[in-house]
Amino acid sequence: MDKFTLHEEPISGNCYKVRLTAALLGVPLNRRIYSILHGETRTAEFLQTVSSFGRVPVLQIGDSTFLPESNAACFYLADTAAAAASLSPKRPPLIPWDPLQRAEMLRWMFFEQNQHEVNIATLRFWVLAIGRQNLDESRLAQIEGKISAGEQALDCMEDHLAKNEYGWFVGDSITLADICLFAYTHIAGDAGFNLSRWPSILKWCEQVKQVQGYIPMN
Amino acid sequence: MDKFTLHEEPISGNCYKVRLTAALLGVPLNRRIYSILHGETRTAEFLQTVSSFGRVPVLQIGDSTFLPESNAACFYLADTAAAAASLSPKRPPLIPWDPLQRAEMLRWMFFEQNQHEVNIATLRFWVLAIGRQNLDESRLAQIEGKISAGEQALDCMEDHLAKNEYGWFVGDSITLADICLFAYTHIAGDAGFNLSRWPSILKWCEQVKQVQGYIPMN
Repeated sequence: MDKFTLHEEPISGNCYKVRLTAALLGVPLNRRIYSILHGETRTAEFLQTVSSFGRVPVLQIGDSTFLPESNAACFYLADTAAAAASLSPKRPPLIPWDPLQRAEMLRWMFFEQNQHEVNIATLRFWVLAIGRQNLDESRLAQIEGKISAGEQALDCMEDHLAKNEYGWFVGDSITLADICLFAYTHIAGDAGFNLSRWPSILKWCEQVKQVQGYIPMN
Repeated sequence: MDKFTLHEEPISGNCYKVRLTAALLGVPLNRRIYSILHGETRTAEFLQTVSSFGRVPVLQIGDSTFLPESNAACFYLADTAAAAASLSPKRPPLIPWDPLQRAEMLRWMFFEQNQHEVNIATLRFWVLAIGRQNLDESRLAQIEGKISAGEQALDCMEDHLAKNEYGWFVGDSITLADICLFAYTHIAGDAGFNLSRWPSILKWCEQVKQVQGYIPMN
């Protein structure tokens, strides 16, 4: 199996997704830590060798392959873990084998990047890392809209979880959809969202924490 | 093969992605058209039968399965087309078989939803459909940031395409990454982006238009 190194920032939920996926799969992962606030992902060395995007996480595969985008990194770890473990039938753990369930998993992962992360994670970063008093006018003008859109995203999740008898996003067991949505949902309180409004989400968070191999964010 | 119906709005690039994917695969697709501006995706009937999210596209599979999220719908069409055509070896057209290339394809699809669509598509919708003179203060305050973030996304694409000898995002042929990024890139002019700044992107757009089965957006 290839050796994996995660280039990451510990306060990032996007980075935590990849660590949690590796932990649940039992795949070893080296960690290389950067401070976003200190500009450590914008140095010439980072831009030249790790990613010209200046963002983390980046999953390094072996010596010279670098994969950006958290959800793609989770997919690669799960997709290759089954092959590496020579599982038969080749059903990647955390990725459903059935094409419809696999597409439904991806549906929630795209939802996460398009309607959840851009609101809840961004608000959390502004409040927690930058500080509300340091936000410029453009960001201040967006806060109300991001709170509203974040609440809508949580409403969608609540509605879906309440209808699923197993309490997972897809099918009867945990998939990457749960991991990717869990990362910024379970810490949405940092961004000012009171999760007690969404009881099925709270229950699902507890269910994720009970999965064998679970690791907390910090 | 299941019968597919796309619930869609013709001005949406997200909807066009799914139509283009089906066209390149040669998969028949029924179309059910809605006007977003006239609230036709927010009616009680739509919310109850098609999607409680009130968004399009939604890919209807058979009579009673509804799949939201454009990129997930593209994935499902490509993933199942190979099986339906009994291709051997089972290499889904538009989805690379190699796990690393598949993850790299997904990487660009997540990038599209997280850093491209939320800026370029949103700006286009505001300018083209709502009209700049009708935007509220919160949206007006976001325009500058979205132009800058949209330019950064196009810079990332240009940088990547310029390095790829085949001119595609992943490997040596078109994948879903190209289709999903093409949708809002080739009409980025509607949102005020002058694509002549990004020559590799312009060349790639022409290359997409030459693929067998290509259909234009309108």
